[in-house]
Amino acid sequence: MQNVFKIIWVLSCMLLTLHANEKVYKLKMATTWGPTLSPLIDAANNMATMAEKLSNGQLQIRIDTANKHKAPLGILDMVKAGQYDMGHSASYYWKGKDINTLPFTSMPFGLTSPEQYAWFYHGGGLELMQKVYDKHQVYSFPGGSTGVQMGGWFRQEIKTLDDLKGLKMRIPGFAGEIMARLGVQVTNIAPGELYTALDTNSIDALEWVGPSMDITMGFHKIAPFYYTGWHEPASEMHFIINQKAYKKLPKHLQDVLVVSMRLAAYDMYIQNYDMNANAWEKMKKEFPNITVKTFPKPIMDAMKKVNEALIEEMTQENALLKEVLDSQKAYQKKVRVWTQMSDYLYLKDNL
Amino acid sequence: MQNVFKIIWVLSCMLLTLHANEKVYKLKMATTWGPTLSPLIDAANNMATMAEKLSNGQLQIRIDTANKHKAPLGILDMVKAGQYDMGHSASYYWKGKDINTLPFTSMPFGLTSPEQYAWFYHGGGLELMQKVYDKHQVYSFPGGSTGVQMGGWFRQEIKTLDDLKGLKMRIPGFAGEIMARLGVQVTNIAPGELYTALDTNSIDALEWVGPSMDITMGFHKIAPFYYTGWHEPASEMHFIINQKAYKKLPKHLQDVLVVSMRLAAYDMYIQNYDMNANAWEKMKKEFPNITVKTFPKPIMDAMKKVNEALIEEMTQENALLKEVLDSQKAYQKKVRVWTQMSDYLYLKDNL
Repeated sequence: MQNVFKIIWVLSCMLLTLHANEKVYKLKMATTWGPTLSPLIDAANNMATMAEKLSNGQLQIRIDTANKHKAPLGILDMVKAGQYDMGHSASYYWKGKDINTLPFTSMPFGLTSPEQYAWFYHGGGLELMQKVYDKHQVYSFPGGSTGVQMGGWFRQEIKTLDDLKGLKMRIPGFAGEIMARLGVQVTNIAPGELYTALDTNSIDALEWVGPSMDITMGFHKIAPFYYTGWHEPASEMHFIINQKAYKKLPKHLQDVLVVSMRLAAYDMYIQNYDMNANAWEKMKKEFPNITVKTFPKPIMDAMKKVNEALIEEMTQENALLKEVLDSQKAYQKKVRVWTQMSDYLYLKDNL
Repeated sequence: MQNVFKIIWVLSCMLLTLHANEKVYKLKMATTWGPTLSPLIDAANNMATMAEKLSNGQLQIRIDTANKHKAPLGILDMVKAGQYDMGHSASYYWKGKDINTLPFTSMPFGLTSPEQYAWFYHGGGLELMQKVYDKHQVYSFPGGSTGVQMGGWFRQEIKTLDDLKGLKMRIPGFAGEIMARLGVQVTNIAPGELYTALDTNSIDALEWVGPSMDITMGFHKIAPFYYTGWHEPASEMHFIINQKAYKKLPKHLQDVLVVSMRLAAYDMYIQNYDMNANAWEKMKKEFPNITVKTFPKPIMDAMKKVNEALIEEMTQENALLKEVLDSQKAYQKKVRVWTQMSDYLYLKDNL
């Protein structure tokens, strides 16, 4: 009889141990995007689905989109405070709170997407990102690249620097600061009112994203000049996770999470590459008059000069920001030579 | 007493069920590469390490490199026969056995790496690859891109089509066939003898990979002209897995395997981007006389013409090969327009 109870005891202990290995962990993630904003929201959804599959259901991530939490630009604060465990957003949205977060999305005249991934994973970028975000008690990881963003839709062609003076344009963030220094009257208008503002000449131009996300906005129907990108050559979204929430996960589920974020990021880059190709083909077919333009060299040179002056000002009394931007600059100098002799010279003969 | 036995019975059944979920699955993978051939072997190793971590030890993949199995070009046969469960190699190595496998690595004047990933994952490429490999009872997945491969090392500059006539060059595969039609005397020399062959003028030129893998071969010390790529703009390695071995895995571990392969592939692309930048910087510093050259337009045009003629011949009586190549061609036509207005025009002003 005693033996029978011993057997029951041992079996029960084994069951409990096994059960602990099967414990379900639930995380809540907030996104800056609404539920239909492809491809950005897809990166968040794909990451969560993948984490659940890979963990055999042990890691479950519930996503609240901006429609639910109503604080699209409050993601960092909410994750920092532990109100959410994770977030999906873009690092440069936090530049008002902490200027050091600016360089982890994309910098004007900066790295392209493969160059930037190489910087993150092999050039010290990921370590610098953790150094910056440690202050906010979160970890930050690449969360999907849009690739090159277009320079925006213009109703009139921009031929000289004078054409920029007094031009009313919606272009937010750091790129807006550059444009402002060149005499552009930078305005901020809610997304829902942009089309009408452009249509009624309240503004002369606007910057949005690229064909895949611009097409539903309809700007191509009323502004025929589509300028090529200079300000965000590789905009990388990011995942953030509260450090305490991360540390509570068993090592195996931490691995699942990191792999899911990393793959969802690359996948978004490729998805958007395809979406851009399709959207542009459709736009151009329906509105053959749209013209792709590149800013003339004197304008581009002026933008570069202002960009460098602004960076100089920002970094003067900020050693950490200087460290990050210097790291990007040094990496770009090295890697761009390779990009030129590989992709660029290949494409030059195959357009 | 009866109740006690009932409890033992139920507990035992639960234990058995839980134990089944924890069963360890072991797979054997053969690679075409030796144990130190970075970055190719790294993709295989990273995939295996990741699969084991993600599955919490439940999926274990043992890798035999070419040094062990001695059949670097026997991977497809061995996996087909079930001698190995998986392989890591390159699809175009099997073109002698099955010409339809040719297009899944890289085609001359074809897609770039991001374009090709977009074709695989959003343009029908992955489905076409399974269609081709079904005949061999394996599944095939992207396994890591080298990015643009360089056109090769030449001791003399190539100025006209006449300079190609009688030129002795080591350039294997489909690119070699193109060169042969332009009068090049294409030779096949074992890798270990290439340096001496070039040094003693047994050959005038050779094609290898790109800076990251060329640097250890030392060709840059004796052949100062480094030509840009045209024949393999996005060479993608591949993972293959025996269909029966794959089907034996529980669904959850199939997911782990597919995710591990997909991420290891992207990661190799980015790793090699970084390695190329570093290797080129080092070469150029130590041998400042190396010159990067692009084949003059008449040569490039002649290569394109021969390429199209060869494809025309190959596809004439092969509907499946035609389907694959037509799919790539149509996708390239659409996506290249986007590549031009995004990456290409951005880079043009930022070199």
